Amino acid sequence: MKPDGTRQIAFILGHEFTALDAVGPYELLRLMPDTEVRFVAHRPGPVLTDGGVLSLVASHSFDETPEPDIVLVPAISANGPHIGELLEWLRRVHRTTEWTTSVCGGAMLLAMAGILDGHPATTHWSALEALPNFGSDPRPEERVVRSGKIVTAAGVSAGLDLALWLVGELHGQEWAEVVQLMAEYDPQPPFHAGHMSKASPRVRELAAAEMDRLYPAG
Amino acid sequence: MKPDGTRQIAFILGHEFTALDAVGPYELLRLMPDTEVRFVAHRPGPVLTDGGVLSLVASHSFDETPEPDIVLVPAISANGPHIGELLEWLRRVHRTTEWTTSVCGGAMLLAMAGILDGHPATTHWSALEALPNFGSDPRPEERVVRSGKIVTAAGVSAGLDLALWLVGELHGQEWAEVVQLMAEYDPQPPFHAGHMSKASPRVRELAAAEMDRLYPAG
Repeated sequence: MKPDGTRQIAFILGHEFTALDAVGPYELLRLMPDTEVRFVAHRPGPVLTDGGVLSLVASHSFDETPEPDIVLVPAISANGPHIGELLEWLRRVHRTTEWTTSVCGGAMLLAMAGILDGHPATTHWSALEALPNFGSDPRPEERVVRSGKIVTAAGVSAGLDLALWLVGELHGQEWAEVVQLMAEYDPQPPFHAGHMSKASPRVRELAAAEMDRLYPAG
Repeated sequence: MKPDGTRQIAFILGHEFTALDAVGPYELLRLMPDTEVRFVAHRPGPVLTDGGVLSLVASHSFDETPEPDIVLVPAISANGPHIGELLEWLRRVHRTTEWTTSVCGGAMLLAMAGILDGHPATTHWSALEALPNFGSDPRPEERVVRSGKIVTAAGVSAGLDLALWLVGELHGQEWAEVVQLMAEYDPQPPFHAGHMSKASPRVRELAAAEMDRLYPAG
């Protein structure tokens, strides 16, 4: 936290990242009092998402962001450019963060940086089985997993639940409810297949095939 | 729909728009088969969101997008630049769209374009009372309101529910469930104040004050 009580939140952008992983939490966390948000990549400028059409613009570089209070890592292609810089930066800033967080495949970046070693975690269901390779204990039944100052969320839309929980931790339940109401986060999905345990075998099979098609590198 | 069966979805970007209004639905709708997504503004290039930090990049201009199959309008500042062009474009393309949709304050743009005249609709709770000025009947209790080919969603996060519903309409329940599972849309908010009817009087009061502070122009 800065001397004036402001927290800086760094949302990381990287090659072929998943937009909602970052934008979901951003839209809730930005509504907290005394919060400075920034979008951070190896350098400022547009960063293309995994769909190949949408770009978000990084406002700051890693070098310009040496001491974020909160870091949020979305799914980013682990084979993309500047991954080495990202992992090195994550290792460095994690020493002084208040919270280090990930959404979806962002947990794999934390894992590759060595940050999840010895910690339970979650990630997108398609990546859960890789976590033990990095010393992390997968928690497939939990949507948001906290271990010390590390918080990981399940796939894509789970970042909203992570963020709302974090607002509650930082500013109490009343303020979390204010943020929830401002964003009208009163979810009413018309279908109920959002978790592996709830989807039919056929839907699981089709979803796994689609994931392989869209993300052939895993 | 194009001769090859592809649908084009135009997500509109405009001055001080709310990022999640567009990115939430995008992240689900882009997973449909035979779908071309694009981000459309008065011209291609970065467009700043309401928080003043994040920009998304428009991939195409209005002129380059004369016949989208689906239009999705997020909350955009009604006093911003290029609103006239946006409204004129909306009126024109609405004649041939398959679906015309909005999330959050995006309904106000549809209303200003005359598209909601005679239609029930919803929008962010802070804007509901303005709908009757445009001949639209507000539905404060409904998260997603369909009237013919017009579909409006409540505030910010409601776009996810609109999008999932729309995938079901276009490709059936099984495919909607595949998309839901891919995005792990199995929401578990830790608090339950996401609708005016669920929030305490104190939370409603604080949220209204925050809305006035962040969006003084309404």
